Amino acid sequence: MFKKAQKDDKFFQLFDKVAETALKAANMLEEFLEDLSDSEEKLKKIKDVEHEGDALQHQILEQLNQTFLTPFDREDIYMIAKYMDDIIDYIESTASRFVMYNVNYATDDAKKLSSMISSCCKEIIPLMKEIRNMKENKNIKELIIEINRLETEGDKVSRTAIRNIFTGEIEVLEVIKWREIYQFLEDTLDVCEDVANVIEGVVMKNA
Amino acid sequence: MFKKAQKDDKFFQLFDKVAETALKAANMLEEFLEDLSDSEEKLKKIKDVEHEGDALQHQILEQLNQTFLTPFDREDIYMIAKYMDDIIDYIESTASRFVMYNVNYATDDAKKLSSMISSCCKEIIPLMKEIRNMKENKNIKELIIEINRLETEGDKVSRTAIRNIFTGEIEVLEVIKWREIYQFLEDTLDVCEDVANVIEGVVMKNA
Amino acid sequence: MFKKAQKDDKFFQLFDKVAETALKAANMLEEFLEDLSDSEEKLKKIKDVEHEGDALQHQILEQLNQTFLTPFDREDIYMIAKYMDDIIDYIESTASRFVMYNVNYATDDAKKLSSMISSCCKEIIPLMKEIRNMKENKNIKELIIEINRLETEGDKVSRTAIRNIFTGEIEVLEVIKWREIYQFLEDTLDVCEDVANVIEGVVMKNA
Repeated sequence: MFKKAQKDDKFFQLFDKVAETALKAANMLEEFLEDLSDSEEKLKKIKDVEHEGDALQHQILEQLNQTFLTPFDREDIYMIAKYMDDIIDYIESTASRFVMYNVNYATDDAKKLSSMISSCCKEIIPLMKEIRNMKENKNIKELIIEINRLETEGDKVSRTAIRNIFTGEIEVLEVIKWREIYQFLEDTLDVCEDVANVIEGVVMKNA
Repeated sequence: MFKKAQKDDKFFQLFDKVAETALKAANMLEEFLEDLSDSEEKLKKIKDVEHEGDALQHQILEQLNQTFLTPFDREDIYMIAKYMDDIIDYIESTASRFVMYNVNYATDDAKKLSSMISSCCKEIIPLMKEIRNMKENKNIKELIIEINRLETEGDKVSRTAIRNIFTGEIEVLEVIKWREIYQFLEDTLDVCEDVANVIEGVVMKNA
Repeated sequence: MFKKAQKDDKFFQLFDKVAETALKAANMLEEFLEDLSDSEEKLKKIKDVEHEGDALQHQILEQLNQTFLTPFDREDIYMIAKYMDDIIDYIESTASRFVMYNVNYATDDAKKLSSMISSCCKEIIPLMKEIRNMKENKNIKELIIEINRLETEGDKVSRTAIRNIFTGEIEVLEVIKWREIYQFLEDTLDVCEDVANVIEGVVMKNA
């Protein structure tokens, strides 16, 4: 059903690019949270990266529609493209909340979660390279375990953070804003794990 | 793999019907927001249309399960049915928030978003007709571009609207209610775009 | 395309197990809401069951990736595994809100919804057994109708419950917390219905 995967396959090249784009967006969010001055200007630049991500997703889907023999399951290519796009979208959505809600500071927990998103995106880059081999190997396993670990850790951080904003010391409007920001940060980490799980499945099927 | 698509195929007829039903629901939401008196009674009528939508989705899935040779990818038929059902569900959910939360007025932004949902649903009707041709043509492209434009525009309107309810002038309970209403309106426009994207993919694959 | 389904097929055994696990989690949530003392300790036990569910989902996907001839559509096996995992995840998420938000009481409506989730999970167990027959029969129809009924009824209960917390008598922070708890309870019932719908589709296709 599948053609023998070639390491220079167009799909792999596009996956590499979208992984680089996700890391770029993740790094921009980290810098954004470090210094929220001129947030509207900085958000525009994150939006530009989001548009790059949209364009890449579109290219992957176009390639998918034109290719009869794909290197692995069409459905998995589709899901990787979708989830990578989600990661970048959620990063932009997180940043946009600060502008939309006129929030001028970032909590330590938000910064920590943002840094974990960068770490996940950094792991996804070699994962996309390993997928070319289509073989389960130590490298892949370690990358996936690390992403899973970051997601579990992030879940704890965000739950504690959310618990802390509900103690009654913070003004209710701020509570609502931060509840949503933490949700976006947590969801971004969740999608990083989703990508890793799809790649794990691809490798299992082709082992 | 696919039978030659026939323009009177049962699937196309059901897609036409569900597109008409979505437009009906969208128009009812617009009228609902114009005059929120007797909102509980009016909501019941929107619920009836939602049930029509459910029945149509069920018919499409039944047809899908009974048909061996579908006019195009089963997965795409499934997604179109799902998203069209989502549009109608979200319209009902939006209206139901006014009743559930005892909200007796609609903001101009909510009316604007509701009118954009109607516009999207109006574009989806000819799009469902064009899908019969399975060929990329100027008409299809323009319809899809217009739906994308409406979604992008809607995103801006809802972000500004949400920003405006968080300025501290509105009572917090109202903020929570309106945050949710705007989310449903925005999500409805998102799903309109999702349908357009699936149709674009179908046309690309069969070009 | 499919091998003749064997009643002792590995997939059916795993589906039985995951259905039992969902019911266990649902029952634990009911007990949890009855007595919220030591909620953090009790939550840990629900988390353990959630991990059992994760392990079962992983086994089903592994089995799916290793099996060439599945008893029915791969996509449907995947969706049943996903939705069953969602049910258990949402149950844990509901319970965790009480700990995270330091909520020490459960409303009657929350208890009612939790009991309906248990009822749904109880119906899913024989449904998983009936799926072995791959034939539409009176039993299956009745089980699906009952789950649909519970979901519709649950929707009414949660809408009324949400309406009641927005009357202005409850402190806003509590409103936010309970809005989220009711959403999780409602979403859990929704996924129960999603599972039933997938099973209905499997049976229709193989009738």
